[in-house]
Amino acid sequence: MTNFLRSIPIMSVILGFAGLYYAWKTYKEILKVEIKNEKMKSLSNEIYDGAMSFLNRERKIVIYFGIIVFVILLVGIGFETALAFAFGAICSMGAGYIGMAAATRANVRTTQAAMESENKALQMAFSGGSVMGVTVASLAILGMGLIYGLLKMLGYPLADIAKILSGFGMGASSIALFARVGGGIYTKAADVGADLVGKVEAGIPEDDPRNPAVIADNVGDCVGDTAGMGADLFESFIGSIIATIALGIFLGAGDIRYQILPILIAFIGTLASLISVMIVKNSRGWAPASALRMGTVISNIILAIASFVLIKIIMGTFWYFIALLAGIVAGLIIAALSEYYTSGGPVIDIAEAGDSGGAATNIIGGLATGMQSTTYPIWTICIAVGIAYKSGKYAFATDYANTALQAKMIAASLSPYIYGLYGIGIAAVGMLATTGMTMSVDGYGPIADNAGGIAEMAGCDPEVRKITDKLDAIGNTTAAVGKGFAIGSAALTSLALFAAFAQTVQATTGTPIVIDVTKARVVIGLLFGASVPFLFAALTMKAVGRAAGKMVDEVRRQFREIPELAHVLTFFKKKELGEEYSEEEMKKAEEAAVGKPESDKCVAISTEAALHEMIAPGTLAIILPLFIGAVLGVQALGGFLAGATATGVLMAIMMSNAGGAWDNAKKYIEEGHLGGKGSKAHKAAVVGDTVGDPFKDTSGPAMNILIKLMSIVSLVCVPIVLYLNDKVDINQIIQMVTNFFK
Amino acid sequence: MTNFLRSIPIMSVILGFAGLYYAWKTYKEILKVEIKNEKMKSLSNEIYDGAMSFLNRERKIVIYFGIIVFVILLVGIGFETALAFAFGAICSMGAGYIGMAAATRANVRTTQAAMESENKALQMAFSGGSVMGVTVASLAILGMGLIYGLLKMLGYPLADIAKILSGFGMGASSIALFARVGGGIYTKAADVGADLVGKVEAGIPEDDPRNPAVIADNVGDCVGDTAGMGADLFESFIGSIIATIALGIFLGAGDIRYQILPILIAFIGTLASLISVMIVKNSRGWAPASALRMGTVISNIILAIASFVLIKIIMGTFWYFIALLAGIVAGLIIAALSEYYTSGGPVIDIAEAGDSGGAATNIIGGLATGMQSTTYPIWTICIAVGIAYKSGKYAFATDYANTALQAKMIAASLSPYIYGLYGIGIAAVGMLATTGMTMSVDGYGPIADNAGGIAEMAGCDPEVRKITDKLDAIGNTTAAVGKGFAIGSAALTSLALFAAFAQTVQATTGTPIVIDVTKARVVIGLLFGASVPFLFAALTMKAVGRAAGKMVDEVRRQFREIPELAHVLTFFKKKELGEEYSEEEMKKAEEAAVGKPESDKCVAISTEAALHEMIAPGTLAIILPLFIGAVLGVQALGGFLAGATATGVLMAIMMSNAGGAWDNAKKYIEEGHLGGKGSKAHKAAVVGDTVGDPFKDTSGPAMNILIKLMSIVSLVCVPIVLYLNDKVDINQIIQMVTNFFK
Repeated sequence: MTNFLRSIPIMSVILGFAGLYYAWKTYKEILKVEIKNEKMKSLSNEIYDGAMSFLNRERKIVIYFGIIVFVILLVGIGFETALAFAFGAICSMGAGYIGMAAATRANVRTTQAAMESENKALQMAFSGGSVMGVTVASLAILGMGLIYGLLKMLGYPLADIAKILSGFGMGASSIALFARVGGGIYTKAADVGADLVGKVEAGIPEDDPRNPAVIADNVGDCVGDTAGMGADLFESFIGSIIATIALGIFLGAGDIRYQILPILIAFIGTLASLISVMIVKNSRGWAPASALRMGTVISNIILAIASFVLIKIIMGTFWYFIALLAGIVAGLIIAALSEYYTSGGPVIDIAEAGDSGGAATNIIGGLATGMQSTTYPIWTICIAVGIAYKSGKYAFATDYANTALQAKMIAASLSPYIYGLYGIGIAAVGMLATTGMTMSVDGYGPIADNAGGIAEMAGCDPEVRKITDKLDAIGNTTAAVGKGFAIGSAALTSLALFAAFAQTVQATTGTPIVIDVTKARVVIGLLFGASVPFLFAALTMKAVGRAAGKMVDEVRRQFREIPELAHVLTFFKKKELGEEYSEEEMKKAEEAAVGKPESDKCVAISTEAALHEMIAPGTLAIILPLFIGAVLGVQALGGFLAGATATGVLMAIMMSNAGGAWDNAKKYIEEGHLGGKGSKAHKAAVVGDTVGDPFKDTSGPAMNILIKLMSIVSLVCVPIVLYLNDKVDINQIIQMVTNFFK
Repeated sequence: MTNFLRSIPIMSVILGFAGLYYAWKTYKEILKVEIKNEKMKSLSNEIYDGAMSFLNRERKIVIYFGIIVFVILLVGIGFETALAFAFGAICSMGAGYIGMAAATRANVRTTQAAMESENKALQMAFSGGSVMGVTVASLAILGMGLIYGLLKMLGYPLADIAKILSGFGMGASSIALFARVGGGIYTKAADVGADLVGKVEAGIPEDDPRNPAVIADNVGDCVGDTAGMGADLFESFIGSIIATIALGIFLGAGDIRYQILPILIAFIGTLASLISVMIVKNSRGWAPASALRMGTVISNIILAIASFVLIKIIMGTFWYFIALLAGIVAGLIIAALSEYYTSGGPVIDIAEAGDSGGAATNIIGGLATGMQSTTYPIWTICIAVGIAYKSGKYAFATDYANTALQAKMIAASLSPYIYGLYGIGIAAVGMLATTGMTMSVDGYGPIADNAGGIAEMAGCDPEVRKITDKLDAIGNTTAAVGKGFAIGSAALTSLALFAAFAQTVQATTGTPIVIDVTKARVVIGLLFGASVPFLFAALTMKAVGRAAGKMVDEVRRQFREIPELAHVLTFFKKKELGEEYSEEEMKKAEEAAVGKPESDKCVAISTEAALHEMIAPGTLAIILPLFIGAVLGVQALGGFLAGATATGVLMAIMMSNAGGAWDNAKKYIEEGHLGGKGSKAHKAAVVGDTVGDPFKDTSGPAMNILIKLMSIVSLVCVPIVLYLNDKVDINQIIQMVTNFFK
């Protein structure tokens, strides 16, 4: 038995490589499909180049940041942790490259497949997404299996293994923050630039190739939804497993089963994801929406059944299975709630509010819906935490009776409540185990979106556009569901990381940790932490505003200074006013599409602005926990993390759901309700949708990373924080000031 | 010395009566001024009647609620606490009646005084406001002095005195919630109804007497800003003192000085307020804005100097003075920050965002500003808490050395950290001690606002309107500052109440209380509590939407069904289109002002809707803490309160500042910037202002009460919570369910 368990890390390395091979094969298959239309090919190449240039520029900036953190970790924690940090960062970046390459290759081929059939288009788009999905899951278990297995083999002490693994997680987290924040700013700057000048001011249709910002807009979809979401889930997946391993090391008192269990669950989940990805890819009879939904359901069913059997055999109690189930079910419920609030009755209410009152009532309706939509997801998280915690504690009874743990626990002076925390960790791992499948579905969305854009830009048959539109609409739903899931998993992961942080402090200092909110320091930490997500949301929203402003200026400049584009503007104005125009004028306006718009300049602006604007919030997220910990101590840092997690989750839900609801309220009206396009309700809905853009695609998703990153930074940097606090605790600062005046 | 201290409660009763007498005299003085203009008189009477009918209807609803809570307290806690609850509720309602009567009598006389001079108008408006200000402060110290003195005389045990005093606070809190939420809904429903149909649809000027909702709008200003704010500060004032007395009883181990100190500070603060009210009222040479500002400064300087001397003499250490100063200064800083974010550079940024982008960018700018504006106030609160806590702990050293406390503390097994909590309480009391002056300034605002409305409705000379406009503009600033102050004081009061709650639990159960956020129950409580302000904001925003909808329907109905008003509509349409109209038509349209609009129906609708909509959120605020405490225990309840306080304060700051900033961005444009009225920027700003209305006048201010009420309910109901938890703890529920299935 123990020998079998020992082999799990090796098996996960094998599975990791197998997964990567599968992703590679899928990518090759995608590339094999030849693109017949030259125009489509060149458009796709432009998007590909834009995406790669963003990643390359991002890499260059991130590398400086990475070196600084690497050195800090090297000096403050140790060589292995610093190395693991770099490895985690490289894995996350690597996943981003692979996923983006696949997405920007699959988009044009999806358009082409849509010329044949809906089913083929779905399969191509999903194939593209599955490259990212499978890569993310494979790299995660490969990385962790490798580190864990290697260190075990080399005979590292358990506590050190936990520490080094956390370094791996911190690397992934740091990249995730930049990818999410940078991606979020990129996509919205391009989106607003393309819409505001192109659609609203110039009156050109959406995705028209004569709009200079339209390529950047399409790149942005991939940068935000593929790279950003991938890095987010990669981090959650790793974070939940690492936190649980760390807790398992503490409570297991040397019993390997507790360390292996989270890896084993991730292993099963990844296997289940691979199977269901293959099923969806080869599905023929199913409608696209059901195919994607079935994939998610199948992967979770496989996970549940296999885990049930294995947990019972290995752990001798089914209580851990209950904790796991709590996580899986909570994830599905939160995702379903996101779908409800962004597509059900609340959306119609918002649309109608705009109809009766105007833009202001539409906005109030959306904000109120967003705020109200926090209640049930929070209850779901609370109940899941409660069940997982209780299950962990019940498992304790079995574990305690069946093993020689009792004496070990007494020797390590462990309280049974750590079993409850371990249960919470298992729930988080359960929710995230099928990340491979979840991410594949999420990755499908931007590809379908891009495919529609390419069809429009290349002037494809309206029938093609109809198919891509349908696939895109499904993509919007999967995106909303994916966002809900990402938030739920971030919440549980943060809690698990928080528990691991507290236990690490306890183990390091040798005294029991108590983060008591009746103490002033903890209250101060809590209030301060709670305010960080508000600040972070404000900074990212303002960053989008600034970046979008630059894009708007550039697009306006091109329409003014490039004669061919200026002609397009005049032509569309004439058309709008119903004036007559000559055949020649029309032809000239059409010809402007080729080679005239300086798309690369727009891409460069989005890239520059996004990378520039991501630095301040990113740095803040890493420095603030260290600052609080250094000045006020680890208890205050605990309060800080608790406060930040609470408001971070709330703001994430509020912003994502409000944004999604506004978006769909606009779509609902555009379908012909309440007067359709151009009506009073529609004008109001356009305002709501624009407000919602940074909510749902920039600030909201950035919250997930913020809370996870601050937790994992705290976890990794416990020794640094303790050291610094010893030097600059507020009492000593007061003493110094007092002495100075004496 | 001790004898002198014993006399403080009696002295506060005397001061309380003296203050009430002063308020009464001021009210009589106001009434003595005869109104010469019949039209103005009748308008003022309509507003008075509307205000009184709201209070009367509110009283009838609240009485049912009060009886239920009374019975629960009677059975669960004791007769005296229930009685004190009723007394607190009656005092709060009474203050509301007196303040509203004065405000609605002073408004018309301010208009009349504006015919003479600006200074006279200021004095009349401030006199009206000072009735509420002085009444609030006097009733508070009268009530507390009476209860404390009486119970001491009757020989009640100290712990019981603390409990009964808390009942008094809970009574005040409950009324405050209904007054704030009901008032907030009332004022915005009337405002939106008057603006949307009258101004926007019908094109009638603001405050035109032919608009049926205009009387309700004026009533709403008093209901929201006078009654609502008065109840809010009354509650904070009482809450901070009670919490500190309770902590003083715990830590003083019988030493009366600790119980008396907060009463003494309140006593000095009220005296200081009376003096500065008189100075402002009799100021002649000062400009209105400086007169009000000077009043606030003078009252705080008197408070600071007198407290410094008395604290040094009575407590033998100046550390409590530092705590007090931390509170005073923090209050002023937070108020100044509110002024900055709602009138400085951020406002221009918002206006410009709307100019370059439109409504959506204006909204994003306002939301981002609101979110960002939370950072510094939270830091200020954190630093004030830190200083107050440290000061309390330093004071401990002196107290411990100078008195026989040591043995007593050891006997009562008290930790020195309770001294720190007491310091936080003193800071809260310091911030609120000059409530009499603060509320007088706040009460001035709606009177000046009303005065302008009456001048417009009665068709006064434009010069009169110019003066009232100026006074109104100052009122907007004092309102923004007052809101900031109300939030800051609510935060500190909640923290003090929270500390008292924790100590009460400890004293009741006999075991040290630890609210450890590494425990699952506490985390669940924290998350759940943090989500309540979001839910509360959503409920109140939606309530405003529904109430405003009803008002809009009614105003539209009147303009449609009442022939004279229908004529007004046609007349204004003609005028707008530049068509010719006869002398007769104009005359007919003017005559419609008298007796035709059914203002009473609009008043009734606002009243009904506000009272109907306040019940759900109000009940929630009382039930939720009991529910959490019963099912998950007092530790979870502690986490719940901490979470709710953190997000409640953040949401209050965010919503108040965003709302104020939008409002002033609109005013900035209306002053002629960015194209002035009717420009693109202005249209965007109108949307922002409308979104901001429920933010700053309904949901934002309601947060203050929510967090204080939930804290005080928890404090009072500790025995009930412990009893219920003993019966329905989640473990027992699980057991019951398990047994059922067996």
